[in-house]
Amino acid sequence: MQMTPPTILPCLQARLQAQENLYASRNRISSSAWSNGIFDRYEHPVLTAAHVPLAWRFDFNPATNPRGLERLGINAVLNPGAIELNGRFYLIARVEGADRKSFFAVAESASGIDQFRFHADPILLDQIDDPDVNVYDMRLVKHEDGWIYGLFCTERRDPTAPQSDTSSAVAQCGMVRTHDLKNWERLPDFKSSSAQQRNVVLHPEFVNGRYAFYTRPQDDFISTGSGGGIGWALSASMNPAVIGAEEIMDPRVYHTVKELKNGQGPAPLRTSAGWLHLAHGVRNTAAGLRYVVYALLSDLREPAKVLRRPAGYLIAPEGEERIGDVANVIFCNGAIARENGDVYIYYASSDTRIHVATSTVERLLDYVMNTPADPLISSECVRQRRSLIHANREFLAAAHL
Amino acid sequence: MQMTPPTILPCLQARLQAQENLYASRNRISSSAWSNGIFDRYEHPVLTAAHVPLAWRFDFNPATNPRGLERLGINAVLNPGAIELNGRFYLIARVEGADRKSFFAVAESASGIDQFRFHADPILLDQIDDPDVNVYDMRLVKHEDGWIYGLFCTERRDPTAPQSDTSSAVAQCGMVRTHDLKNWERLPDFKSSSAQQRNVVLHPEFVNGRYAFYTRPQDDFISTGSGGGIGWALSASMNPAVIGAEEIMDPRVYHTVKELKNGQGPAPLRTSAGWLHLAHGVRNTAAGLRYVVYALLSDLREPAKVLRRPAGYLIAPEGEERIGDVANVIFCNGAIARENGDVYIYYASSDTRIHVATSTVERLLDYVMNTPADPLISSECVRQRRSLIHANREFLAAAHL
Repeated sequence: MQMTPPTILPCLQARLQAQENLYASRNRISSSAWSNGIFDRYEHPVLTAAHVPLAWRFDFNPATNPRGLERLGINAVLNPGAIELNGRFYLIARVEGADRKSFFAVAESASGIDQFRFHADPILLDQIDDPDVNVYDMRLVKHEDGWIYGLFCTERRDPTAPQSDTSSAVAQCGMVRTHDLKNWERLPDFKSSSAQQRNVVLHPEFVNGRYAFYTRPQDDFISTGSGGGIGWALSASMNPAVIGAEEIMDPRVYHTVKELKNGQGPAPLRTSAGWLHLAHGVRNTAAGLRYVVYALLSDLREPAKVLRRPAGYLIAPEGEERIGDVANVIFCNGAIARENGDVYIYYASSDTRIHVATSTVERLLDYVMNTPADPLISSECVRQRRSLIHANREFLAAAHL
Repeated sequence: MQMTPPTILPCLQARLQAQENLYASRNRISSSAWSNGIFDRYEHPVLTAAHVPLAWRFDFNPATNPRGLERLGINAVLNPGAIELNGRFYLIARVEGADRKSFFAVAESASGIDQFRFHADPILLDQIDDPDVNVYDMRLVKHEDGWIYGLFCTERRDPTAPQSDTSSAVAQCGMVRTHDLKNWERLPDFKSSSAQQRNVVLHPEFVNGRYAFYTRPQDDFISTGSGGGIGWALSASMNPAVIGAEEIMDPRVYHTVKELKNGQGPAPLRTSAGWLHLAHGVRNTAAGLRYVVYALLSDLREPAKVLRRPAGYLIAPEGEERIGDVANVIFCNGAIARENGDVYIYYASSDTRIHVATSTVERLLDYVMNTPADPLISSECVRQRRSLIHANREFLAAAHL
């Protein structure tokens, strides 16, 4: 006797069609968002919880899910690492389930600005001695040793916390490597003398024959600690990676966008003028912490030597970006510079969704080279601005405008 | 040989035209916002970052800015002092650069509700011994001594904080005076026995032949301190202004809109029934602090003697006002009462933009006189409300409605 093949519920069929429409939709530079000329915002986020395949969330079998209910919810898609391979764009997103645990999943696009689709399966990381309770914020780096490395934050409950404290965590840097974004080899966790390490990023080139890392030494969990700043250290090996003393290359500074905390974003982009860094800066407000992205330029041969520090932020939350699970946050740990000079900056807003901002190496270098440094004192900031105003006045008078 | 005059880039020309359109746009009472009858909200903010002249932000010279990039970003325009002079409306706004430093700039309008334009240059404050790292929230007061005073908050890093603490600040009251809003004379900082002083406001008239101040004694930075409340104190002089003990005229109160912090808004408005005060009240929430504006009426001859305390807030954030750099904040430090009784309340929302609310002295006095005081206990609040309901029932029955 012939079996009738099982059929999918109409409600799930409709969901699948809606998701295909989402995957097919195009994106373009926003005409309503303010632009400072340095980069462009886009109309839509590039990756959201709605992009996560329905097969990761719903049981399609009507025998076991007759009402078409979601079985494993997805909360948010955020903070992606980014890499270009063979002309295609790959994001390794932090996907957060409704259960608050994050994991990694690769999404791929031809354009880099739209039509990202997740690969079939999320990544199952090999576990080492102490299992990761949570993992997030992977930085992907094509290193000149030939591997693609993924450095991420691994969090476990603080074993020294009293039983009644169910929140305290220890954050350390976990490491994997791959050649194809499919097969991942887990390496031992990064070793430093800091009790906490987040925002550890591998520099893409050897420095004096050694692996080089951006770090954030000695911060307590969420609140700032006694140290902070973007650190820099070398290791002879990646297996294991062990560093000694960390040199602070970009400290926190009073009354700036990086007053409370800061950290390296993606691995820096190599340019003719130096290494172009994106970093995040954090200040406190009466409504919680505010995260923005700022930029730095450092020396090609001595990447820890900062050449330019344009004042203030490059990207701060705007409009809908201000709203989400953790409001008032822009965070970037993935950026791609193409051969032709186009730059794709992937940033998450309010720990909820992923956007792209596009620019060029030329525009970003112009920005870091010609935006004045922060004079750190209100009246000096006014002097700086009045110089610009007076120069404009003279120019406009000469131009008969 | 005739030189060709330099020309401005088309992209900057387009930005200038867009800004002229913004300056020319009109405003009107919002038909969608809820109105309680006491004041009216308007469709658009009156002053935003987009109002800051482009010459303060972009270098117009194509020789030095060939790509038309922004050089000195503006983050927000907020918390203005306000004054009417010769029938025109002036706001002295807190303008915050992308570098997080604020400064003051005057904007002027004929209507008070739209078409505000900034004067050509921002204000360069004279510096005294210890330079202001940040300045904000100026209260402008026409004093009966003939001067216009500007009292503002000046912040410097807390010199007693450990080096690793890059956030702790000391807030004190700086003072300037002027006759024309162009030439400003810096006076010594206000002196009190409080470690921190924000929200210091000069009373517009002499009291017993002395200058009188609203203060906020002894608050720590951001978090509340052991004291708090709106204080009151006298000084024989403005140069220097030195006060002794501060009398608390409006304390913080448990489970009210001013539970955590409060402070005087603009200088009070003189009315036939007393001094009409606008103040801010703060409570804590799981998403940070919530700032609302409330009102008080105090005695004409004894301005520290409060006659009426209508319960609750006058203005709380609504709709888009809830969103910004510091969410859930309404703050007012500028208001104008015209000869004809019209009142213009300038308030900032979420530390990001400036709005106007209009009312009249008559309506505001009705509000402070006839809104019951806070009974401070839920069941008493219900009794208060049921009295209103039952009176209405009787009235409506008698009116055959």
